[in-house]
Amino acid sequence: MTTSDTPYALVDADRLDRNASRLRDHLGSLGVPLRLHVKTAKSVDVARRVHDGGPITVSTLAEAEHFADAGYRDVLYAVGIAPHKLPRVAALLRRGVTLTVLLDTLVQAEAVAEFAAAQGLRVPALIEIDCDGHRGGVLPADPGLVPIGRTLGANLAGVLTHAGESYFAYTPEALRKAADNERDVAVAAATTLRDNGLTCEIVSVGSTPTAHAATDLTGVTEVRAGNFVFFDLVMAGIGVCTTDDLALSVVVTVIGHQPDKNRVLTDGGWMATSRDRGTQAQAVDQGYGLVARLGGDLVPGLLMTGASQEHGVLSTRDGSPVPDLPIGTRLRIFPNHACATAAQHDRYEVVSGGVPLATWPRLRGW
Amino acid sequence: MTTSDTPYALVDADRLDRNASRLRDHLGSLGVPLRLHVKTAKSVDVARRVHDGGPITVSTLAEAEHFADAGYRDVLYAVGIAPHKLPRVAALLRRGVTLTVLLDTLVQAEAVAEFAAAQGLRVPALIEIDCDGHRGGVLPADPGLVPIGRTLGANLAGVLTHAGESYFAYTPEALRKAADNERDVAVAAATTLRDNGLTCEIVSVGSTPTAHAATDLTGVTEVRAGNFVFFDLVMAGIGVCTTDDLALSVVVTVIGHQPDKNRVLTDGGWMATSRDRGTQAQAVDQGYGLVARLGGDLVPGLLMTGASQEHGVLSTRDGSPVPDLPIGTRLRIFPNHACATAAQHDRYEVVSGGVPLATWPRLRGW
Repeated sequence: MTTSDTPYALVDADRLDRNASRLRDHLGSLGVPLRLHVKTAKSVDVARRVHDGGPITVSTLAEAEHFADAGYRDVLYAVGIAPHKLPRVAALLRRGVTLTVLLDTLVQAEAVAEFAAAQGLRVPALIEIDCDGHRGGVLPADPGLVPIGRTLGANLAGVLTHAGESYFAYTPEALRKAADNERDVAVAAATTLRDNGLTCEIVSVGSTPTAHAATDLTGVTEVRAGNFVFFDLVMAGIGVCTTDDLALSVVVTVIGHQPDKNRVLTDGGWMATSRDRGTQAQAVDQGYGLVARLGGDLVPGLLMTGASQEHGVLSTRDGSPVPDLPIGTRLRIFPNHACATAAQHDRYEVVSGGVPLATWPRLRGW
Repeated sequence: MTTSDTPYALVDADRLDRNASRLRDHLGSLGVPLRLHVKTAKSVDVARRVHDGGPITVSTLAEAEHFADAGYRDVLYAVGIAPHKLPRVAALLRRGVTLTVLLDTLVQAEAVAEFAAAQGLRVPALIEIDCDGHRGGVLPADPGLVPIGRTLGANLAGVLTHAGESYFAYTPEALRKAADNERDVAVAAATTLRDNGLTCEIVSVGSTPTAHAATDLTGVTEVRAGNFVFFDLVMAGIGVCTTDDLALSVVVTVIGHQPDKNRVLTDGGWMATSRDRGTQAQAVDQGYGLVARLGGDLVPGLLMTGASQEHGVLSTRDGSPVPDLPIGTRLRIFPNHACATAAQHDRYEVVSGGVPLATWPRLRGW
């Protein structure tokens, strides 16, 4: 399909397009725009296919700078701001990028307000709200919320929450509940700020599971999601997608056989797949990934069960004999976690309709 | 110490130099040369500090090409050769690089012999021997060994084995036994080949644990090791080094506090440390790593216990209160597995005597 040497990252553009239009249509029917999280693909080409030039979320300032270079002008940096990073934020604001930062402490709010005043800039900031104890954020009822908002002054742009625990919601009902809770918590925090005379323009929620499960987003102004462009086995494991939606895989070559151990060796180890074993905690542990023929059809029962740096080990789930895979055979590995696997690669080889379409570069670093 | 934005990879050049001279001296006393494995650091600057221009082992052809550009002329590609990669091997041979390949099947031996004959080249090849069931290789008593050697003909250069299971040897005695076994198996395979009238010039063994534990390498012509340049918590956990030898860390910044959860948040998540949790299976699980002050002193009892893509979670091993670490504080994280953590970075910020020395680029890709 392509002539790249293995291992390499392969993107199925048809699946990517289908994943993108499904979520766009769903959020469109709920009347809320998507703010694409670009941290999964870190690719301008992928972002353009989802919504050209639209609002984006980034996980690093390197992403913000890269997408600004490509013309993106509405960028949310959704990791708590470290005060020493504010000069890079200011440089983006001065380029005409609406770069919004995130924080959840008074110390950060003071740093942002002082920096903004000293620079004669508005540094738009969202307050991170904790909706499920997953990571950072203040609780909506926390007495510290309003003081943070007041300290930010004119820099206050709104609130943000992320239902990180939705990755562990295993039924449609649990997913919908996580989406409802994410909305309720964000809207409650916005209401508290407004009730105290503060402006709260943005009410930002999102995760790939809740974005798909939401049925009512009243009061929410935007939804963040990123993983859905590729999906992965963790998302399939919680029922947000099926294995037919997996748009990212790693192409590997068979380099050895161990009939006595019923194993096949490939040239794709953890350097190519990452060490992410996200399905280990799920009902079905998929090892380092499911194995498919180069054309995309799954090889039933075959898993990548082991990895050294540049060696992959394939074996069967039930111990039945591994299929005949001659030395030199190319296979696809569908990974646990697209964000982590993509990060091991500098580019994507892209296919559409089974034929090569393009090579897309990928950003890394901070 | 440096002005790089966090997270970034920091190398302590003094520790690196000490680690390198310790192993050089040890192998020197055993009369066997080191063939440095460059897959850990993937840095010409690191390799030059260990032994300028000496023989190296690589895990990818991209490494072989990169080090050839830097003047290295004796390169072993220690991953089973996929036949479609032979043109890249030939290109290196034609540049005057002695590029030795590895294989363990008759199919590969036939492919190498046919390719070499067709190209009018000698493609030096080692036969991989299985010494502990860890990965690939033929057993020294396997009736398939001699036919592989015969098929290679003049391309046969020797044998190689790797004591991958030594990473799970937790006592000095177990480590020495692993080293003895690695030597015995390699020498036995070489003897079998020689007894059958074949030439076996190279008898290559190695892993960082066995390289340090070996006390007698009679019959061995070279020792491969790579991790020792940086060492890591997995190596400390099996007693091959101490935490004072750890030369690689990730510098992160404190971005949040969660007093109710007794946690500190940083801007260094799994993107910066990798998902490698190699100490999970050891007696002491070090989480995603040990935490130190920027100067290098460990913060007693503090671990990186959780990671999202760009967030790290620090908490204490015994639940005692986390120390006061104000927003903006820079810390070092000593990782589980140096090979995996280094792979997340494009460069190293290098310090010596506590002051910045240099920035060293790092290779990636295949």
